[in-house]
Amino acid sequence: MAEQQTYNVAIVGATGAVGQKIKQILEDKKFPVNQLKLLSSARSAGKEETFNGETIIVEEAAPESFEGVDIALFSAGGSISKQLAPEAVKRGAVVVDNTSAFRMNEDVPLVVPEVNPEDIAKHQGIIANPNCSTIQMVAALKPIKDAFGIGKIIVSTYQAVSGAGNAAVEELYEQSKEYLDGNEVKAEILPVKGDKKHFPIAFNALPQIDVFEDNGFTFEEMKMINETKKIMHDEALNVAATCVRLPFATSHAESVYIEVDQEGLNVKDIWKTLKSADGIVLQDNPQEQEYPTPQSAEGKEEVFVGRVRKDLDNPKGFHLWVVSDNLLKGAAWNTVQIAQTLVKSDGFKK
Amino acid sequence: MAEQQTYNVAIVGATGAVGQKIKQILEDKKFPVNQLKLLSSARSAGKEETFNGETIIVEEAAPESFEGVDIALFSAGGSISKQLAPEAVKRGAVVVDNTSAFRMNEDVPLVVPEVNPEDIAKHQGIIANPNCSTIQMVAALKPIKDAFGIGKIIVSTYQAVSGAGNAAVEELYEQSKEYLDGNEVKAEILPVKGDKKHFPIAFNALPQIDVFEDNGFTFEEMKMINETKKIMHDEALNVAATCVRLPFATSHAESVYIEVDQEGLNVKDIWKTLKSADGIVLQDNPQEQEYPTPQSAEGKEEVFVGRVRKDLDNPKGFHLWVVSDNLLKGAAWNTVQIAQTLVKSDGFKK
Repeated sequence: MAEQQTYNVAIVGATGAVGQKIKQILEDKKFPVNQLKLLSSARSAGKEETFNGETIIVEEAAPESFEGVDIALFSAGGSISKQLAPEAVKRGAVVVDNTSAFRMNEDVPLVVPEVNPEDIAKHQGIIANPNCSTIQMVAALKPIKDAFGIGKIIVSTYQAVSGAGNAAVEELYEQSKEYLDGNEVKAEILPVKGDKKHFPIAFNALPQIDVFEDNGFTFEEMKMINETKKIMHDEALNVAATCVRLPFATSHAESVYIEVDQEGLNVKDIWKTLKSADGIVLQDNPQEQEYPTPQSAEGKEEVFVGRVRKDLDNPKGFHLWVVSDNLLKGAAWNTVQIAQTLVKSDGFKK
Repeated sequence: MAEQQTYNVAIVGATGAVGQKIKQILEDKKFPVNQLKLLSSARSAGKEETFNGETIIVEEAAPESFEGVDIALFSAGGSISKQLAPEAVKRGAVVVDNTSAFRMNEDVPLVVPEVNPEDIAKHQGIIANPNCSTIQMVAALKPIKDAFGIGKIIVSTYQAVSGAGNAAVEELYEQSKEYLDGNEVKAEILPVKGDKKHFPIAFNALPQIDVFEDNGFTFEEMKMINETKKIMHDEALNVAATCVRLPFATSHAESVYIEVDQEGLNVKDIWKTLKSADGIVLQDNPQEQEYPTPQSAEGKEEVFVGRVRKDLDNPKGFHLWVVSDNLLKGAAWNTVQIAQTLVKSDGFKK
């Protein structure tokens, strides 16, 4: 038996919410790591982290950091990716990027391994990880689209605060405490750190995730719309999204309406398709009150689907409730899955 | 000038979340009350309440309680309404019922005064107040339907805990405190007090409001579907709903997709219609991050609409975000509005 090939891996944004999860998953899944580099901003450099029982000192990310790196997993914000991902590629690394920086670039595959693993082979150095809310939706819908066709998707999201980072989660908990104590609540981060106004998220709902585009949709909504078409390889697919931030830390939920192409289907046909799909868990038994919730999905890798209903008017319409841990399948786990698929494929030459 | 006609009014469920709001609104709006009776279960009877500066002792509701009552405002649950509303009618009162007990009865008008005030005249003793999540949606959509026609509605709700009563709000806050303190969270009320299982609502989302029907929709979802058709007088209208309970106390929000009949409309046409509509406040300026939230709508009578967008694929499709205080326009204020319209109308003979 041949010795297992191992890889030098770098995590960029190693101290962030997603970076921490990536490190944990690489360890849990026994990813064939030779050497792990943990890279961050200057502010977090010098921190000590452990990986497989060994201590690793976090280093400040710089172009030279990627010398000798085979796989670089980026999760430190779009501007860092734009600046350093090309430097990593130049030095021979394959980048899996978890930001929106390159997702819509024509020569960058946008991949959910259960949905379009074949796209990985087309990479030219960078593979993009889709937006968290997109990943779980396409994972749930792809098996249905393959089986019956889908022409239209309308989604309303129920998104967790951790999608805006660890500081946003701290803001949620801090605001919650102040609210419960009857004190004034301060809002400094959400809905969008860099935007003009901030509103309390504790005991509230904010219909803004990311900044507004000129068409009145938010960038988050446009990500769901455009990324879904790209991942599904279907520019004609109708997709509409309304994205809402809600006061819980983990897992996005989505109320999804679809119109299938095939006539005469019922809920059991959708159930059957989802039951045999990779990475999907069907939790749908209304009479026993079985359905996924953000808390029930937390810490799990899969995408959970429940509340499947046939539309009462349109015989081709179906409603679904899709929930997944936004930091795992929505980010860290999908990133590592891409890296796993990459190292297993012939397309990856070390 | 003639002396103002005054009325003997009873509130059934006077110590509940909605009953308390009704009493406050009768006072604030100077409803022409001659005598106010506050009725409740045996458990709350004997409590002292004030109305217009006078002390009123809460009495246990019984058939005889309605002797001499002109208008009885019921908000004590469906079984109480089923039992006592006919007794009130028998004794000459007109009942405005805030439960689902009679809403779909053919001879009971189901009324949102901005939408179908004319139906009040058809009453035969009972007028029903629609479900909270229905009221705000039809209030926002009726002016659009009148102007341009609407053939299809798909709504996903973001509903406040107070819709399940004061005890549910206490549960939310108690669970939130325990969660923040790192303690185990107990769930005893939500999603539905009388159902088999209970799940935490704090820092979570529950895709169940009211019990499940055989078709996989919840009763809350079927209320939105059926009540909307009845109030709009349009059995052919396509309506689909997914109802979700969220961790905030007050105001329901709704992500609403509509398909209008008229071609060639844009967002400004919808804005113009909403701006001139009774009881609607347009809060829609994305560039200034202006949109309603549950907290911004709390304590206000109106229905707030924002995030109006034209669908990117269907030229007859529009998306809206509709928010209103579920205890006010969704319950107490709509109930008092019905009573106001009733006493102003010729149909009400004292």
